[in-house]
Order: sequence, then structure tokens, then C-alpha cells
Amino acid sequence: MVGMRATLLYGAGDVRVENVPDPVLKLPTDALVRVSAACVCGSDLWPYAGMPAGRPPARMGHEFVGVVEDVGSEVRTLGKGDLVIAPWIISDGTCVFCLEGRQNACERFSMWDLEAEEGGQAEAVRVPFADGTLVKVPAGVDAALIPSLLTLSDVFGTGHHAAVAGGVAPGSTVAVIGDGAVGLLAVLSAARLGAERIVLMGRHRARTDLGREFGATHVVSERGAEGVAAVRAILGGHGAPVVVEAVGTRAAYDQAVGVVRAGGTISRVGVPQYEEAPIGIDSLFLRNVRLVGGAAPTRAYIEELLPGILDGTLAPGRVFDVATGLDGVPDGYRDMAARTALKVLITP
Amino acid sequence: MVGMRATLLYGAGDVRVENVPDPVLKLPTDALVRVSAACVCGSDLWPYAGMPAGRPPARMGHEFVGVVEDVGSEVRTLGKGDLVIAPWIISDGTCVFCLEGRQNACERFSMWDLEAEEGGQAEAVRVPFADGTLVKVPAGVDAALIPSLLTLSDVFGTGHHAAVAGGVAPGSTVAVIGDGAVGLLAVLSAARLGAERIVLMGRHRARTDLGREFGATHVVSERGAEGVAAVRAILGGHGAPVVVEAVGTRAAYDQAVGVVRAGGTISRVGVPQYEEAPIGIDSLFLRNVRLVGGAAPTRAYIEELLPGILDGTLAPGRVFDVATGLDGVPDGYRDMAARTALKVLITP
Repeated sequence: MVGMRATLLYGAGDVRVENVPDPVLKLPTDALVRVSAACVCGSDLWPYAGMPAGRPPARMGHEFVGVVEDVGSEVRTLGKGDLVIAPWIISDGTCVFCLEGRQNACERFSMWDLEAEEGGQAEAVRVPFADGTLVKVPAGVDAALIPSLLTLSDVFGTGHHAAVAGGVAPGSTVAVIGDGAVGLLAVLSAARLGAERIVLMGRHRARTDLGREFGATHVVSERGAEGVAAVRAILGGHGAPVVVEAVGTRAAYDQAVGVVRAGGTISRVGVPQYEEAPIGIDSLFLRNVRLVGGAAPTRAYIEELLPGILDGTLAPGRVFDVATGLDGVPDGYRDMAARTALKVLITP
Repeated sequence: MVGMRATLLYGAGDVRVENVPDPVLKLPTDALVRVSAACVCGSDLWPYAGMPAGRPPARMGHEFVGVVEDVGSEVRTLGKGDLVIAPWIISDGTCVFCLEGRQNACERFSMWDLEAEEGGQAEAVRVPFADGTLVKVPAGVDAALIPSLLTLSDVFGTGHHAAVAGGVAPGSTVAVIGDGAVGLLAVLSAARLGAERIVLMGRHRARTDLGREFGATHVVSERGAEGVAAVRAILGGHGAPVVVEAVGTRAAYDQAVGVVRAGGTISRVGVPQYEEAPIGIDSLFLRNVRLVGGAAPTRAYIEELLPGILDGTLAPGRVFDVATGLDGVPDGYRDMAARTALKVLITP
């Protein structure tokens, strides 16, 4: 084979697109997928900011949509030519947790980021447990929908997970911390589930404007104690019954604790960049604040969220504000880290 | 007035029963209550173990049942001679949170432990916000039920809160960490709500035997990694969907994290003796473990739990294994701290 182009992270701030060997089927449960579209994730920015020195380069990309090129002998549900969505979690589809829709706890759990030789920011990928991992899209889909389909890999499903785990229902009041793609799609998801008041905390005007279009009724640009006071002022002083934390920093967690109402729920979907944090008497315990959420089993939500994309009522793909080929990926990382790009779409 | 006897904590390990002035009505919303029965709480043992030096002596006791002696001019629902249960929280009964049954977030929240001149381990008490705080028991109750009624002040309501917050329902599988009064009454509460499998983690045989009578189907005496392995072995390897943490130490929290199933719930009611603890990727986030519970609004549960006590189907008062007059209170603290007494009933 002639090889292909793929994205590798060599160290903090050092992303390169290089020639690598073509992927090949290794196990009978594998599929080979030619990538139609991929993207850079907010969570890619954590290793991009601080990858420890001395590690071998890592293949990047855990969100992609593509076309099946070949399948192993045990793959039952997919065939050559199928358009598929690849969730950010590799899951076997058969264990007790997968059957419950908890792919995040799959007994054979893996992630693209843990697969040394695979990654979605590339021309093609070998997909383990193809029946369990991939979801087939109905044939004949308009190519213009691909960006929105791509959000089902991770960011839309993650925003939806935040809203569902937080218990958002018709009439809910929700505060969303973070105006990245996940925060904005948590706004869209909360609105879809019937939330009436949605306060978006973010300070990038272009993003919060999109948040308003997605359903945010209020925007708070202040942070810290001022941000907490602003949210409480909007909500009549008692705080938000549901708070979505869509950033992952300790500061964002502290913001959530400050904004949440007594008896309310903090739903976390930002990947925590901390292990310990306050959960004692003053932070959660006395007020009976619930802490929920976590890594989103996005595969479990595709069936529910796909129809709205196919019929055009949902356009989560609007979070992509930059599109590039593979050669533009290093610039894409740089621009997302600098917050000048919201989310970068890659068409290899 | 001639004064009365009351319990004071002077410092770590130093509890005394002394003569103090009789309580008097101070505000028109106050009631005066003659204490029929009070008790020592597991949470009293935290200041008993480690009260900082240099503090003025503290009046003790936040669980009591008594008879109303006098009421202020604005008290509407109570009168002289009423038998009342005093929850551990003083609450106004009129704020938005009280109306929701969240007395733990009452806008005028107080606790007996915060009232410098009041405490239930005494002959009499001034009760602030009497209409909001106290719950009247129907006239003519058998005196033999008083120990069980007393558990509605705190420990039974707290055990019930743990089960409710944890989402216990018919058929549930629950692990309860801690064989103190709250842990045992969490077992009783889980069984009452229909749990089918209840694993009690504790190592005091007399207590765990009572736990079995309350509904525990399994007892695990090991702690730490061995305890986690034992619970998982009983439950088929995946852990407990609901874990009640009824101790409050960091070790008990870590035990809960180890025992809980992916997607499951840790319901905390042990007063946390820590502020920060692990909640990041490896502990809660990846597995989507929910952290719920907190200070129990026990007043809100009395209406639901009282009938079972009155008709004899529930006997939570069995957690009292020692009874004493006021003079025996210092020994009661010592014996509870030494774990030779489970819970000490005081009849002044």
C-alpha cells in the first residue's frame, strides 16, 4: 500500500500531519473506514497543552464519520459502502454495560486515544468491535448533513448526556458553564428537552450568540464570584436547579458549586483536569447538591438524536466555524487553543 | 426559677452535666419543651473526639422528644401538653425551601448545636420557630413508642433520606457502609422501600445482627480493598447500584467509590469529616457514578414514617441499646466513642 496521511501529537503544541502505513484489518471484528469528516475536540487541547515529554507521538482524533471499506469475517451489521458514525468510545456492544447503554463502562472499553495506531484525524481508520462501536446512517443522506452527523460522535451526544443526567425536563431552569462546542450543544439539548430558562456562562460573543440561537435565554459573561452573583440575580437569588459543567477545570467546578441551587444538580461533562475537589459540608453536603454526569455514552443516544438531524430540525453542526483539509490540522489545533476557532472540521 | 440540668461539652473527651438557668421564651415564635427523651448522636462524637481548645463549653443534644410547656404568642399549631418531636434542624417552616421539604436549606436554618444556650440533652429546651421546627404526635401515644419516635428527630429520617436520595425502589440492590444507628436505619429504610438485596458493611456483631433483623441480606465485615472485593463477589462482580455511606470518614467515602457499580449512586448521609475528596476521571467521572444525599431534612419525612411506628410495624427504636438518666450522659459518650454502646437513650 502507498500509505496515508494522519495526525500525530509529538508534544505540547507540536501537532504534525505525516505519512503512516495504511490501516489493515487485524481482528475478525474489525472494520476499515475511510474518513469523510473528522474534527478537533476540546479535550484534544488538554494533551496539546501539556503532553509530557518523552512519550512517543500519539495518533489523534476520536470523532469521525466515514465510509466502510472492508469488514472482518465476524462483522454482522455493516458492509462495504455504509456511511457510519464512530463514537468517541470503542465498545464491544455485547457486555452487560453496553446492553444498558453504558458504553462508558464497556468491559472491553477503549478509546481512539488509547489505540496507538489509530485516530480519526486521518484518511482511514481500523475500527475495533465494529458492530459494537459504529452506527450506520441510512443510505442517501445529504452530504450537507455530515457536519451535524459528526457531532453525534461526541459533542452533541455529550451535551445531550449532560442534560439527561441533570434531569432536564419541560419547564426546567438550567445554567450551562462553558461556551465551547459541548456547552453550546448542552444548551441545544436542554432546549430540545423543554427547558424554559437557560443561562449560558461564556464570554466569547460569537459563541454565546450561537448559544442564544440554540436556545439560551440569558448569557452571563462574568466569571468567579461575579458570575455566580449574576446568575443568581437572573434566577431570583436561589441559584440554578440544574447546572451543566462543560469545561473540566477546577474553576468551572467551583463555579458550578456557586451557581447551583440547594437540592439542585451539577451535571459534569467537561473532562475533569483535577482528581480531588470540594464535596464536603459547605460545598455539597449541607445543601444536598447532587453531582452527576461523566463520560458520555454517545453511541446510546444516536438513535434518539439522529432523526432531528435528518429532518433538519436540529443543526448541531453549526458549532463548526472552520473547515480544513488534513494539512490545516496543526493550524486548527493552534486556533482552537487560542479560542479564535470554536471547532475545526476536517475533510481529509 | 431553680434552674435545671443540661449537658455541656468542655473539650475533647470532657462532657459534663451541670446546673444551668431554666430556658425562657425569648421570641413570640418560641416554645418551651420539657424533654421526655433525648439521645447521643454519632455526630456528637466528632466534637467529643476533637473539640478545639479555647472554645466556650457547648450545650449538646439535637435529638429529643418532649412535652410543650409554654408557647409564644405567635405559635399557632402547638399548645401546652402536646407531645412533640424535635428534628435536628431548626427551620422556620415558611421559606421557599421549607415549603419544598428542604429544611436543610431553610433561609433561617439553625441547629441546636449552633444555639449557644439550648440543647436536647437537658431537662428542658427553648425551641425557636416552634411551628416550623416541631412536629406534634397524636395524643395518647403509648410511652413504649417514645424511643422509636425519638429516632424521627434524626437517625431514622437520615437513614430514610439516604435510601430516598439513592433512589431505592422495589427490587433494588443496596450496599450500606457503616453499622451505626444511621447505617442500620438505612437498612430498615431500604427494606421498607422494597430493596431485595441489602449488603451491610460493618464489623460489630451485635449491630450487624440487628441489621439482619432490619432487612440486611448479607453482612461484610472486611474493610478497604478486601471489603470492596467481598461486596463485589456477593453482587456478581459489578458492584452495588446504590451505596449508602453512613459514616462520614474519607475511608468510608473511598469504600463507597470502590463498591459502587458503574452508573450507580453513592448516597452520603455520614457527616463528611473531609472537604476535598476524589471525584475525577478514575473515581466518579468515567463510570458516571452519581454522588447524592447530604444533611437530611428529617422533618419532611415524619409524616410518612410516623404511621409505621404508631402501628408497630416499624421499630427503629431498637437502635438504643443503653438507657440512662442525665447523670449517665458522660459515660454514654465514652461508651459510644468506644463502640461498646450503639446509641444511648437519655430520660432526663
